[in-house]
Amino acid sequence: MDEAELIARIEKSLARRGLATGNGIITGIGDDCAIFRPRSGDDLLFTTDQMHQDRHFTAATAAWQVGHTALARSLSDIAAMGGRPLFTIVALASNDPAWIDQFYAGFLALAEKHHVILAGGDLSSTPTPSCDVMVCGAVPRGRALLRSKARPGDTLYVSGPLGAAALALERGRPRLPAPQLAMGQTLYAQGVRCAMDLSDGLSIDLRRLCVASGVSAHLDSVPRARGASLHQALHGGEDYALLFTSRKPIPNAIAIGRITKSNPGEVFFDDRPLPPLGWDHYHEPSS
Amino acid sequence: MDEAELIARIEKSLARRGLATGNGIITGIGDDCAIFRPRSGDDLLFTTDQMHQDRHFTAATAAWQVGHTALARSLSDIAAMGGRPLFTIVALASNDPAWIDQFYAGFLALAEKHHVILAGGDLSSTPTPSCDVMVCGAVPRGRALLRSKARPGDTLYVSGPLGAAALALERGRPRLPAPQLAMGQTLYAQGVRCAMDLSDGLSIDLRRLCVASGVSAHLDSVPRARGASLHQALHGGEDYALLFTSRKPIPNAIAIGRITKSNPGEVFFDDRPLPPLGWDHYHEPSS
Repeated sequence: MDEAELIARIEKSLARRGLATGNGIITGIGDDCAIFRPRSGDDLLFTTDQMHQDRHFTAATAAWQVGHTALARSLSDIAAMGGRPLFTIVALASNDPAWIDQFYAGFLALAEKHHVILAGGDLSSTPTPSCDVMVCGAVPRGRALLRSKARPGDTLYVSGPLGAAALALERGRPRLPAPQLAMGQTLYAQGVRCAMDLSDGLSIDLRRLCVASGVSAHLDSVPRARGASLHQALHGGEDYALLFTSRKPIPNAIAIGRITKSNPGEVFFDDRPLPPLGWDHYHEPSS
Repeated sequence: MDEAELIARIEKSLARRGLATGNGIITGIGDDCAIFRPRSGDDLLFTTDQMHQDRHFTAATAAWQVGHTALARSLSDIAAMGGRPLFTIVALASNDPAWIDQFYAGFLALAEKHHVILAGGDLSSTPTPSCDVMVCGAVPRGRALLRSKARPGDTLYVSGPLGAAALALERGRPRLPAPQLAMGQTLYAQGVRCAMDLSDGLSIDLRRLCVASGVSAHLDSVPRARGASLHQALHGGEDYALLFTSRKPIPNAIAIGRITKSNPGEVFFDDRPLPPLGWDHYHEPSS
């Protein structure tokens, strides 16, 4: 199967799922660039995440699972800003047509669920598979949820219990992440201005939020997923729950602490400093 | 140097060059997503290109050259649609901080030349370097130059002589590609509706243009770069000249043939069928 045949297969699958054009994409795969016509009144959100074999997954990981996870990670960033996803552009590298097919099976199933248009991409033949997934989303102008908007006095919330992904990894059964898009899109209406997604672990991600906002945080209690340890809930990555702050109570969310004004970036748990032990992409995982 | 330090160095370099925000990017690196505020009346163009060591460059290639070339390839796609570049998002993988530094030195020098904002990215630690560069550009609404707009009777043009990149590669001195952005932006005013960039070689790229437009083409003469063979001019990749069609004469461009209505996708040179021998990304280079 050559590049043209592979692309033809992907295009057929896109047409069948209604993911070739739409959401503003007026020209998709097939020209030098995709063409997008923005809707007035929207700000656009852009994020990208790469996955490399032997780094983010292994040779034993099913390709459809890599495809699902790669899209889910970028969709989670869109959710964290309160956005609705519009389209994606994918760079994929593998020399195995069956692997590519399976990657797109997982990728497009999730894309269909959230109606994300596959606007374009790039295919390259390499011995070790990798991918990079860019997603564009939209929010009403000026309404993106930012990491930098936490203020002392805010209550700190998460969208659900933590540690399930770290527990699943320990048990050798990686979990498919589910981006919290619906939750993200309702937060602004509830008065929320500050949010981020938990990709690397609560301890390190909360520290980043505090640094960006110039505040500190006190954690009182952290909801644990069934079977997960406190360490997994505090430091485990890949949960993709949303972390956010608010002055008003937020329905369907779990209060875990409060924003304070100690030294910017400091995080306390049970009134003791909590070291950031989550995943740093550039180093080996430190937890 | 950890991820945070590397990102801080890149951000400092961006600020110095005025490439951290602007061109519609109101929030760049540092949050879950970049935020872009579109200008009304524009269509937006999106393209992505990846480069992998041992595939698109070697361990001996200077990292700054990889950075320059990676951005140039995507900018060339923007040029081919008649667009002006706005911003870029970069996924970079390497476990060598010095390589990453040098990559960005080459990348940002070219970004500065064309005022392309570095809106965001992703950094990953892998033993073999690779990158994926997404560029967003803009054209006035409905004015993007398309591959599919060639019509029988059009004259076929290139923006300059061909084969220089293939010749340089043969001599072991790869050439830095220069995206034809100024040329691309003036074509529409001159009545041009159909264009693409020559990345894989004239024979294969012209065939793609003909397939997209449902037309055929007759080449009469092909301008050769100094020292390049006819084979290098016809089939060599990486020239990044623009290929386009027009009814009216186009100044500063070289007429090379005409669009005809034989079988769609057929290309003739000196009235004999010209086989597509250029680079197919998914296979080994066939020329």
